[in-house]
Amino acid sequence: ALAASAALSSPLLAQAKPEETAALRDAALTDTVAWDITEGLTTEIGPRLAGSDAEARARDWAVARLKALGFSNVRIEPFEVPYWERGEASAAIVAPYPQPLVLTALGNSAATPTKGLTAEVIGFDSLDSLKAADPAAVKGKIVFLTHRMAVTQDGSHYGTVGKVRREGPSVASKLGAAAILIRSIGTDHHRAPHTGSQSWSDGAQPIPALALANPDADQLERVLKRGKPVTVALKATARMAGKRLSGNVIAEVPGRDPDAGIVLVGGHLDSWDQGTGAIDDAAGVAITTAAAKRIMDAGQPLRTIRVVWFGSEEIGLFGGAAYREKHKGEKHHLLAESDFGADRIWRFQTSVAEAALPAMKPLAAALAPLGIQLAPRNGDASGSDISEIQKLGIPVIELGQDGTRYFDLHHTPDDTLDKVDPVQLRQNVAAWTALLSVTANDPTDYGPVPPGAH
Amino acid sequence: ALAASAALSSPLLAQAKPEETAALRDAALTDTVAWDITEGLTTEIGPRLAGSDAEARARDWAVARLKALGFSNVRIEPFEVPYWERGEASAAIVAPYPQPLVLTALGNSAATPTKGLTAEVIGFDSLDSLKAADPAAVKGKIVFLTHRMAVTQDGSHYGTVGKVRREGPSVASKLGAAAILIRSIGTDHHRAPHTGSQSWSDGAQPIPALALANPDADQLERVLKRGKPVTVALKATARMAGKRLSGNVIAEVPGRDPDAGIVLVGGHLDSWDQGTGAIDDAAGVAITTAAAKRIMDAGQPLRTIRVVWFGSEEIGLFGGAAYREKHKGEKHHLLAESDFGADRIWRFQTSVAEAALPAMKPLAAALAPLGIQLAPRNGDASGSDISEIQKLGIPVIELGQDGTRYFDLHHTPDDTLDKVDPVQLRQNVAAWTALLSVTANDPTDYGPVPPGAH
Ligand SMILES: [Zn+2]
Ligand SMILES: [Zn+2]
Ligand SMILES: [Zn+2]
Ligand SMILES: [Zn+2]
Repeated sequence: ALAASAALSSPLLAQAKPEETAALRDAALTDTVAWDITEGLTTEIGPRLAGSDAEARARDWAVARLKALGFSNVRIEPFEVPYWERGEASAAIVAPYPQPLVLTALGNSAATPTKGLTAEVIGFDSLDSLKAADPAAVKGKIVFLTHRMAVTQDGSHYGTVGKVRREGPSVASKLGAAAILIRSIGTDHHRAPHTGSQSWSDGAQPIPALALANPDADQLERVLKRGKPVTVALKATARMAGKRLSGNVIAEVPGRDPDAGIVLVGGHLDSWDQGTGAIDDAAGVAITTAAAKRIMDAGQPLRTIRVVWFGSEEIGLFGGAAYREKHKGEKHHLLAESDFGADRIWRFQTSVAEAALPAMKPLAAALAPLGIQLAPRNGDASGSDISEIQKLGIPVIELGQDGTRYFDLHHTPDDTLDKVDPVQLRQNVAAWTALLSVTANDPTDYGPVPPGAH
Repeated sequence: ALAASAALSSPLLAQAKPEETAALRDAALTDTVAWDITEGLTTEIGPRLAGSDAEARARDWAVARLKALGFSNVRIEPFEVPYWERGEASAAIVAPYPQPLVLTALGNSAATPTKGLTAEVIGFDSLDSLKAADPAAVKGKIVFLTHRMAVTQDGSHYGTVGKVRREGPSVASKLGAAAILIRSIGTDHHRAPHTGSQSWSDGAQPIPALALANPDADQLERVLKRGKPVTVALKATARMAGKRLSGNVIAEVPGRDPDAGIVLVGGHLDSWDQGTGAIDDAAGVAITTAAAKRIMDAGQPLRTIRVVWFGSEEIGLFGGAAYREKHKGEKHHLLAESDFGADRIWRFQTSVAEAALPAMKPLAAALAPLGIQLAPRNGDASGSDISEIQKLGIPVIELGQDGTRYFDLHHTPDDTLDKVDPVQLRQNVAAWTALLSVTANDPTDYGPVPPGAH
């Protein structure tokens, strides 16, 4: 009985006391570090396209800032990426009702011929109806996909409509389309088209692939419904431009026990080039870094906290894959990423061993005062960059922001600093501080997570 | 006594019975004509820049639609306008933090040299501080004006900040500035710059004059506040391109008494070219036309109703001036214009003879059930195009829409059909129907209005 009691009390001694976690959490509600990082990165660097000179400047900026904040082992881990440039895009309805349309290229879009291309438009209301189309009806035409995105608190409709963006261009290309226009994957009503990644599946010849702003998609749909043939002229100069250097920026808070495994937190440093990447994802690196600094300043944690500002997430999770290859031999205790803006966190999800679920209770207790509930189902937690690392079977906890307005802004020119609410940003820092206080000091193992559990 | 009674009863007989006005007003709450015009004009024509081919197509569209609706004397009254083309505009901060800025040219802006111009930025927080500047400090620089617009229900702050747009470029030019950037005259937080008219005062050499989107103005302000010299590169291809034909489109509901004077209602057919001019001002011509049709269909009114879709309002009230010159010899009973979007009408203002104020009571009674109050002060009613005609001393009644979100959209690419709320649009038609039912049948003279009364 004595021996058993000692075995139990040893981990308990390592755990953060609930009142210490609560004090750290509440102090974080006055945080200024996250705002300063978000403001600084979006102002002094601005847009940070994967592989661009701006992304390289952002890495240097990150290194300087992380060192100034007092982190250890601050470094850049470089890797190469294919470099895609957006160039310019313009379009106009030529007939029956001449007028311009606002649109932008999707990642990996091809250019039009220099003088542009003009073709008839054929509309489809879903990816499935495009897949079922007669190639003879599509050949040489401009395909237009008119799906609509629903507003949800958890952003779950992105999974469904995001597929249209990711797969539609390859399907259209294989059917012989001259180009493809998709309705923006977004919930707003602004002339701000939503870009995003797509890649060409095997055998699909790259064609111009662009997203119309939602009011322009509405307009083209109304024009098509008039029943007359609709001709559109397109110009796009998007192009692949060789290989460029990208990189992950890493900083650490060394733990008392180097063998206890790493708690990895972070977000991505790169952004699409249309906005300044404030909500996607300057806020994410800022929130996680500010929380890690608070834990560092409160005394050395049991486990090492590793903060990663991933590079080249937007164009295909290159930073996550590079990290996995380089660090797959190291012991990771937990992964947690912030890449869904900075509005209020309302729930947290887990992808941990079933046996570790009781260990989530202290975290749930620490997050509850912030209005954050544990989601009932284990296995749903993930992240964008960390999805690559998660494949190794490492536990994940996901703090979920309210996504009600996220897809109004996501991947548009409107992703700018004014969209970050400082009050909600501080609630995020408080939640992440609580997460780190509990998990970096908890000797309980949260794994192993069975393959395919998330 | 008998004679006096007859003199009184004759006007009373001509007046619309309150219950008839109420029935017409309430029936208008199911109107479809205003939506059809707004939808049709913005979809089938789209942007309608003054003097452009699109504005000419819009006039033909208007004639066909007004004839189809059954109006009399449908015609185009042409006039010439100076034609200004927006061209393209791009800008970037070159130093210290390289990144693009979103902006657009103001009306009558000059172009930059073909290769662009690069200069240091000098910021001013008001037109007055620019006016007080040392020319040596401004010479060769890019002036940046950072005023902010307040949200108001009545849009009254437009008068104050609109002056910055209208006068700032001439002041900057006279001080030797290479170019001027103003913060958009608007209340939104989108990458959608607000264009608008400005004209060069005597002795002011045209220079590039552009409006930054509000997030970009925020950004440039933040960068300037860092205290380092800020250099911006600009390119703009805006240009004056000779004279073009514009015109007013006119339609009538002939009154029973051709000598009773005209009730003129309308809005403007032209729009800025960035959006499709839905709230500014397809909705205005649509609302007034739909109301006039309802009166026409209910039986011949006492006075002739003349519906005017003015041309070339945006570039300097050319349609209003052309109308005044052509029609100044005709008797006008009343002028009323809709050019403030299509959100709920909440008040009405008057510019009538003091003696005519009692005659406003039946109108106030007819509008009250729609939630519309008579503004306490006489003399404030006006309108954009009709301001030119109002100078002749003709009475004006102004139905005021709620302007809370108007300047989020005004003169931006975001002025598109989705911004028109069909329910509020119908409330507008109901209010205008009540206005016409009362005033086109009221034998009371509302004038004369003393000069300078508004
Ligand atoms: Zn992201
Ligand atoms: Zn993203
Ligand atoms: Zn207007
Ligand atoms: Zn206007």
